[in-house]
Amino acid sequence: MKAKVYTTLKSSILDPQGKTVERALSVLGFDEVKGVRVGKYLELDLEPGPIEEAEKSLKTMCEKLLANTVMESYRFEIDPEG
Amino acid sequence: MKAKVYTTLKSSILDPQGKTVERALSVLGFDEVKGVRVGKYLELDLEPGPIEEAEKSLKTMCEKLLANTVMESYRFEIDPEG
Repeated sequence: MKAKVYTTLKSSILDPQGKTVERALSVLGFDEVKGVRVGKYLELDLEPGPIEEAEKSLKTMCEKLLANTVMESYRFEIDPEG
Repeated sequence: MKAKVYTTLKSSILDPQGKTVERALSVLGFDEVKGVRVGKYLELDLEPGPIEEAEKSLKTMCEKLLANTVMESYRFEIDPEG
């Protein structure tokens, strides 16, 4: 069973890394880019089991370790076939 | 128009950050986690335009700047309504 976790800085939080990527893209000529936000992407390999259990423990993992919930928001997807 | 870019280390490349997260999760009691890979997640805000153009320039952005194609693989999604 696979899970994918995405974290992003909340929209009220400045994202200097994103700004830097945005400027670099503009220097390379990609002027169509109006904004960039950088986040984390995690792929987790989980023991097979009931999906409700996995959802519950993923939520706890995100709250406790994977995301800084003061500054970041997170979402996750579970793929039971993965 | 929004685009989402995901980069991950290729499976043949060691991921010490992922290993560290995996160990930390195990210490916290999440023994169902058998593996973790850490990647980047970027949200791009693009000027509206034809989706084929956007796909072409996103591919170039990834190859030139956003992903290190020697070590990382990438994929992206474009949401014209975003």
